[in-house]
Amino acid sequence: MAEKIMVSPSLVDENMGDLISDLQGLIRQASISAINYGLEECAELLSNMMNKAGIYTEKLYLDQFDYDNNKWGILNIPPLVFGEVKSKSNPHGKTILFYNHYDVQPVDPVEKWNENPFSGKIDGNMIYGRGSSDDKGELITRLKAVEFILKQTGDVPCNIKFLIEGEEEIGSPNLNKYLLKYGDRFGCDLIIWESGYIDNKGRSIISLGQKGILNVELKVKGPSRDVHSSLAVVIQNPAWKLIHILSSLYDEHGKILIDGWYDEIIQSSDKELLQITKEFFDEDEFKKEYDVSKFVNGASNFAIKKSLALDPTCNISGLFSGYIGNGIKTIIPSNASAKIDFRLVSHMNPKTQYNKLVSYLRAKGYSEEELQISFLSGEHAYRTAIDNEYVGLVIEAAKKIHTDVILNISSPGTGPMYSFKKILSVDSICIGSTVLPNKIHSPNEFANIDLLNKATKCFIEIIERISEK
Amino acid sequence: MAEKIMVSPSLVDENMGDLISDLQGLIRQASISAINYGLEECAELLSNMMNKAGIYTEKLYLDQFDYDNNKWGILNIPPLVFGEVKSKSNPHGKTILFYNHYDVQPVDPVEKWNENPFSGKIDGNMIYGRGSSDDKGELITRLKAVEFILKQTGDVPCNIKFLIEGEEEIGSPNLNKYLLKYGDRFGCDLIIWESGYIDNKGRSIISLGQKGILNVELKVKGPSRDVHSSLAVVIQNPAWKLIHILSSLYDEHGKILIDGWYDEIIQSSDKELLQITKEFFDEDEFKKEYDVSKFVNGASNFAIKKSLALDPTCNISGLFSGYIGNGIKTIIPSNASAKIDFRLVSHMNPKTQYNKLVSYLRAKGYSEEELQISFLSGEHAYRTAIDNEYVGLVIEAAKKIHTDVILNISSPGTGPMYSFKKILSVDSICIGSTVLPNKIHSPNEFANIDLLNKATKCFIEIIERISEK
Repeated sequence: MAEKIMVSPSLVDENMGDLISDLQGLIRQASISAINYGLEECAELLSNMMNKAGIYTEKLYLDQFDYDNNKWGILNIPPLVFGEVKSKSNPHGKTILFYNHYDVQPVDPVEKWNENPFSGKIDGNMIYGRGSSDDKGELITRLKAVEFILKQTGDVPCNIKFLIEGEEEIGSPNLNKYLLKYGDRFGCDLIIWESGYIDNKGRSIISLGQKGILNVELKVKGPSRDVHSSLAVVIQNPAWKLIHILSSLYDEHGKILIDGWYDEIIQSSDKELLQITKEFFDEDEFKKEYDVSKFVNGASNFAIKKSLALDPTCNISGLFSGYIGNGIKTIIPSNASAKIDFRLVSHMNPKTQYNKLVSYLRAKGYSEEELQISFLSGEHAYRTAIDNEYVGLVIEAAKKIHTDVILNISSPGTGPMYSFKKILSVDSICIGSTVLPNKIHSPNEFANIDLLNKATKCFIEIIERISEK
Repeated sequence: MAEKIMVSPSLVDENMGDLISDLQGLIRQASISAINYGLEECAELLSNMMNKAGIYTEKLYLDQFDYDNNKWGILNIPPLVFGEVKSKSNPHGKTILFYNHYDVQPVDPVEKWNENPFSGKIDGNMIYGRGSSDDKGELITRLKAVEFILKQTGDVPCNIKFLIEGEEEIGSPNLNKYLLKYGDRFGCDLIIWESGYIDNKGRSIISLGQKGILNVELKVKGPSRDVHSSLAVVIQNPAWKLIHILSSLYDEHGKILIDGWYDEIIQSSDKELLQITKEFFDEDEFKKEYDVSKFVNGASNFAIKKSLALDPTCNISGLFSGYIGNGIKTIIPSNASAKIDFRLVSHMNPKTQYNKLVSYLRAKGYSEEELQISFLSGEHAYRTAIDNEYVGLVIEAAKKIHTDVILNISSPGTGPMYSFKKILSVDSICIGSTVLPNKIHSPNEFANIDLLNKATKCFIEIIERISEK
């Protein structure tokens, strides 16, 4: 065990200006993975920022064989930013790895933003912009925790690593390859995951798992071109075909109708169900926040909390056919398409679930020619066990900073936690600085400056506690 | 009866250059009623063209009361272009009115056009551009028929009128008001409707009717903003709600499921059904033209022809929700919407049918707050009787120019024929120059120059024959 190095919390308060200024810099460098925009530039900016903070930094790339020139070259995908600070006083101690991402969601619908989505504008306790919370805001608190410790003590009390990817918002399609190629660099004892919620009573929600995901696109082919709608009595409308296909996937009570969809779900343990009862869900606040009057299938209380942690979903994120401008255009559209994300749980394998979807629709008689079913991306679900050795330590650290702690067995969201466990054999814990109203993935995303401050202090606490193990 | 004035067909051939050049001028003046673009400009261009041809022309407007200034003013809608040539030799003879429109459909999807949609580009026998067929191409043949007669004879053998509106493609929302206000000017004995088809054997399809239409938009309200899709297990997705609503309107066999939808349909007479058997429908050509492998509900032969003339439709012309760009955006959309056009037949009243739709969906439990059902526009169906006194005359004229004639009791399309009958008490007959491959309402619309030539000659024949009545 290393000698204990205490960092004064006031150091964080005194340097919040730097933290905010660096976060603004990151927000202003748009980095949208869905449209491959600004990623290399953002990785470069981030690397410089980390180097300046005293963190050894490398941008990592993947190779691919260039058949034109008969040699290996660099795969044209966003680099992974790796960071490391070795402890001088405790070199053989534990290693903590922070997993984050520097890419952000698209900004559509852009007209719903009150400001430029990349303004980094500050208004009171709020800092605005795409990525301000997810994940540049979360990331900056971890970088600054390390920077402040280095600044005050000239060392870190345990070994620290950063793995910051650029494709999280499109389902981390290349993360496995990075983990396999650079696995040696990433060795660690605990992964602190990219984000974590604070509830409306100021309690830190420490989450131990993530759902998986299967992203697909359905495209129905219609006539060779948009056709005058008077012919709808004769020519099949692809939008109607899509409607009938979609309505066969999911019913009005929230049940997925694909044959065998739920087969891979393992019954939850009593311990897990008990933990869910201890979680907190404010129905009224949630309804008010999103302006909804009731929940899917009229669920409430325990059913909602259980669904958020344990149930799969089938969600339409995009639907398009024909003319969507103002006024009327009387056509039969030439095609119709839907983007669907299925959240997966338990032992569901994205590829297996995709195959179930395809078999189900083909069995209904939809041919490959009329209905194209594309696999866009997929990830497994994963959950760190409640009795993992680091859970207590993180809870203790969080209790020192936040009003209280709530342990959550799985977030409703998705990330590549499963890959880290599978390839590096390390478990993950989520803790962070986001609140429900932060509008992540929505227009006018923002972060709360006071929570960025608290999260930074919390990571200092965690790092100090890890050094004692 | 007036003295017969014969116009040489070669005059049309010699002046095709002028016809094409004027048509290019009209195409190049974009005039999209759905987005209120270029309409006044197109009406002005058209008026000048008609004046130059020797046709007395007026742009007609509607008034509205201006409450701010406490006086009557002009309603801000596209003007109606009225044209008239009185016969000097036969002033008390019959009057023929040509109904056309100078507005066009939108050009979306604009990326599917090979040229600027308003190029008027000529390639062999084809002239390209939005409106080249529908309806500027049809219109120019009528204007030129009159211009050429005037040019050769210094007179017209019967009275001629033009009524050219600028809102046909959005359902002629103000035509009734124009007909009521300016009814005296429009008095006539026969209306030649805006367009008409030529089949692939060169036969002129003379159509006596039009279906009605009801245009509606359904909007489903979701959460107050696009929300992270991990919450789909709790928050209702408006796209799913829309899917379930739509699938309750129309089944996979082409049947409209709204209670009482078909109640106003009067059984067709044996005479009408017999006429349908005489029509021609080339299934293979049609399938090839639109690249479809089968028809709605597997219909063939008589069933198809009957449907085209007599059956109502429920067509989705536009469908939108969420993120429709490239890649993935995992959101629950904040809303979802569909544009639907219902073709109406027989005695169906657009407002009554709309009320049936609303009652049906409200009875299913969809509240006004969650589902907005907007009436966009509506028109009644109308059919001129097979034994109308002018039908034989038009058939005879067409037989002189085209290989043969096929009489059709109703087009599958829509127009305000009903309003003319109701307000002016005059029947309409459709005859024109369009072929199936002309891509009307689609990208790369074009007209066939040889058919514009034939239609011009055919209208000269019709005018000469009317003068003999």
